[in-house]
Amino acid sequence: MTAVIHPATDQSPQSPASALVCRNCGASYPLGAQHACFECFGPLEIGYDAERLSRVTRESIAAGPHSIWRYAGLLPAGQNAATRVDSGTGMTPLIRADRLADRLGFTAPLWVKDDSANPTHSFKDRVVSVAITAARELGFTRIACASTGNLANSVAAHAARIGMDSIVFIPSDLEAAKITQTAVYGGKLVAIQGSYDDVNRLCSELAETDEFESTAFVNVNVRPYYAEGSKTLGYEVAEQLGWRLPQQVVAPMASGSLLTKVHKAFKELQSIGLVDPLDYRVYGAQSSGCSPIAVAFETGSDTVLPVKPTGIAKSLNIGNPADGPYALDAVRSTGGAMAHVNDDEIRDGIQLLAETTGVFAETAGGVTTAVLKRLIEAGSLDTSRETVIYNTGDGLKTQDAVSDRVGPTAVIAPTLKGMRAAGLL
Amino acid sequence: MTAVIHPATDQSPQSPASALVCRNCGASYPLGAQHACFECFGPLEIGYDAERLSRVTRESIAAGPHSIWRYAGLLPAGQNAATRVDSGTGMTPLIRADRLADRLGFTAPLWVKDDSANPTHSFKDRVVSVAITAARELGFTRIACASTGNLANSVAAHAARIGMDSIVFIPSDLEAAKITQTAVYGGKLVAIQGSYDDVNRLCSELAETDEFESTAFVNVNVRPYYAEGSKTLGYEVAEQLGWRLPQQVVAPMASGSLLTKVHKAFKELQSIGLVDPLDYRVYGAQSSGCSPIAVAFETGSDTVLPVKPTGIAKSLNIGNPADGPYALDAVRSTGGAMAHVNDDEIRDGIQLLAETTGVFAETAGGVTTAVLKRLIEAGSLDTSRETVIYNTGDGLKTQDAVSDRVGPTAVIAPTLKGMRAAGLL
Ligand SMILES: Cc1ncc(COP(=O)(O)O)c(C=O)c1O
Ligand SMILES: Cc1ncc(COP(=O)(O)O)c(C=O)c1O
Ligand SMILES: [Zn+2]
Ligand SMILES: [Zn+2]
Repeated sequence: MTAVIHPATDQSPQSPASALVCRNCGASYPLGAQHACFECFGPLEIGYDAERLSRVTRESIAAGPHSIWRYAGLLPAGQNAATRVDSGTGMTPLIRADRLADRLGFTAPLWVKDDSANPTHSFKDRVVSVAITAARELGFTRIACASTGNLANSVAAHAARIGMDSIVFIPSDLEAAKITQTAVYGGKLVAIQGSYDDVNRLCSELAETDEFESTAFVNVNVRPYYAEGSKTLGYEVAEQLGWRLPQQVVAPMASGSLLTKVHKAFKELQSIGLVDPLDYRVYGAQSSGCSPIAVAFETGSDTVLPVKPTGIAKSLNIGNPADGPYALDAVRSTGGAMAHVNDDEIRDGIQLLAETTGVFAETAGGVTTAVLKRLIEAGSLDTSRETVIYNTGDGLKTQDAVSDRVGPTAVIAPTLKGMRAAGLL
Repeated sequence: MTAVIHPATDQSPQSPASALVCRNCGASYPLGAQHACFECFGPLEIGYDAERLSRVTRESIAAGPHSIWRYAGLLPAGQNAATRVDSGTGMTPLIRADRLADRLGFTAPLWVKDDSANPTHSFKDRVVSVAITAARELGFTRIACASTGNLANSVAAHAARIGMDSIVFIPSDLEAAKITQTAVYGGKLVAIQGSYDDVNRLCSELAETDEFESTAFVNVNVRPYYAEGSKTLGYEVAEQLGWRLPQQVVAPMASGSLLTKVHKAFKELQSIGLVDPLDYRVYGAQSSGCSPIAVAFETGSDTVLPVKPTGIAKSLNIGNPADGPYALDAVRSTGGAMAHVNDDEIRDGIQLLAETTGVFAETAGGVTTAVLKRLIEAGSLDTSRETVIYNTGDGLKTQDAVSDRVGPTAVIAPTLKGMRAAGLL
């Protein structure tokens, strides 16, 4: 494997990133556009200088913008406010979900972190904001991704905003909304006859070609930078709770990256002293149509066996999840659990969340809500502990999931008589 | 006309609202759920105590929450943080649109205020947050509306969040997304065989019935409160520009309320000294399928003649706009202008905005963008003056407008060979 390595351009003095570190063997590399270890082919992640991280204070964060960039001191790129890409991503509402809590028998507070409020209406704006900022700093001139839909939306939108060329790869059978939303921004959009895993494989090959040397695939060759964007989902929850960790969090899993990074964020906040230590638990949610990580958890296995995804939670349909082992580790080491739910439970989950919180989630949010319920029923999640669930996407992107279940209560003539005939008066 | 009047409950000390004032004859009434003048049947709006308004400072605003409620000191309800409905609405991104500015020949800054970032993805969350807060303070137990779509989404979501009963009225031919998004929250949804104007007429009748005595129709019997929510679109732009007014603003018009209230907000900010005086100009945008206000402007008439709406900008399809005369006045008195654009221009507008800013707007945003272009071409809007355009809704709600214009660049097999065959490698 030969990786195209662009030298890291000058890191502004505050950047806390110090190296790329192999998550498998611990080998360390200089910062740049490398994503796999030369020694063992393991995945690389950003390593930080502990001293530089610990310069970040609650006050320095509060003084920053109302976006993910308030945490720039804990991220690998974007320290320079003038050159980072700030699309207004982040600081999405943390909603106190008392009515959902009642429905599920919680005695402790339950919260929904609603990331459908991001500019392109999913949490992917977080990872893309960081990735495109890093890509520009690293000298790339085009941005790309392999996507299950939301990443496509976000990459195309961010590229349009800053006027960078983009080329986005998706499975051709995605939801219409996600295809239209990607295409409308005007970049290149390549639909692949195959699964996400096929798309991802093709992108990994392309990233090695000369023609794509100047192209940053956000979740391939600049993946170490990209993945760190999900840490902000952890930071924000802690800050919005008044600099406190929740006792339990439930997160959806596709590659498993998001969940892993929320855990990483919580650990960092504790180690630099921004929150008190707490034995929090991390819970993982998948759909039964694609549950390789949750099944490994159930069977007590360390190995995540690839599957061929099916089912309506298309955004989570990654059959061969790159961060599966790390997600397993995060959940097991914190005493959490994982579960998966079928398509009807996902639809129920979407409706339950909408009816009790006013949050219209996409299928991924239905997965998370339904898994929350399932975990409670199984006795694995404790309703007397403060809990946060992550809604990571928007119901308008996957309307078909519920459109034949819900609709007008009545269709009537515009008269009082019509109202009476329908029993509404 | 007999209005059901609920007495205003105790106004918390900081509330600046002092009366309901007739916009037609100036008659004044105590605060409460009244919307029309007993003397002349003219529309009522909230009057404020100038001294109480002037207690609001930049600092008191900055110390408030990151939502519309930071402006509670300038609003008629919600002064009590414990009882107001804060859905996280407001403080949406003000995006510097340099690439759109270039495309249109601007020499001054151009900004997009992107209200698709609100919880239900339109500016209607602003008016509904204020209306439902007022409705609860006034003792109503159910919330309702007549809607062209976005209001329906927002009313149903806010009701679900706080567990209030809701009943929402829409024309039966709305976009599928808006119907599904309303229905998913689980309240009553009544589809009316008729136009929005028919729906509105029915709701006005219903508001007078005994059965609906405890029902707050946000845009009928509590309209004076509701309408004030749109002022926050003006406040936020001023604050986000560093407490400065823009020289020109372009806003879409359905009833004409939003535009009128942005103007009111700018006047208030000047009169209480939060911004320096400036001769700003207000511009109004409609679609040619429903342009009663813009046509009155063009023909120099003071009378807004009702029309039967057609065309794809359904959220703006109000043929008999309640605030039409006031919108005309706001535009004329500031030296602005109005224009209307046809469906193809609206589609072009959606694409132009998406490609240059990464903002995917619904048809209403396409109207505003296309009208901006039209006004420049007509010489009525000055590209050397700082300008803000309002994107008030979300492209995911009106996908059909562009779904047959945009799509994948190529559909290929998941191989390098497939890439080559498509000319992408
Ligand atoms: C809405 C949504 N939620 C969650 C995820 C999971 O992300 P990850 O791959 O980091 O596990 C995705 C991934 O595409 C997603 O689109
Ligand atoms: C997206 C959108 N923009 C603008 C408007 C115009 O609002 P107003 O009736 O206040 O003129 C509406 C009204 O429904 C709307 O839905
Ligand atoms: Zn290694
Ligand atoms: Zn009057």
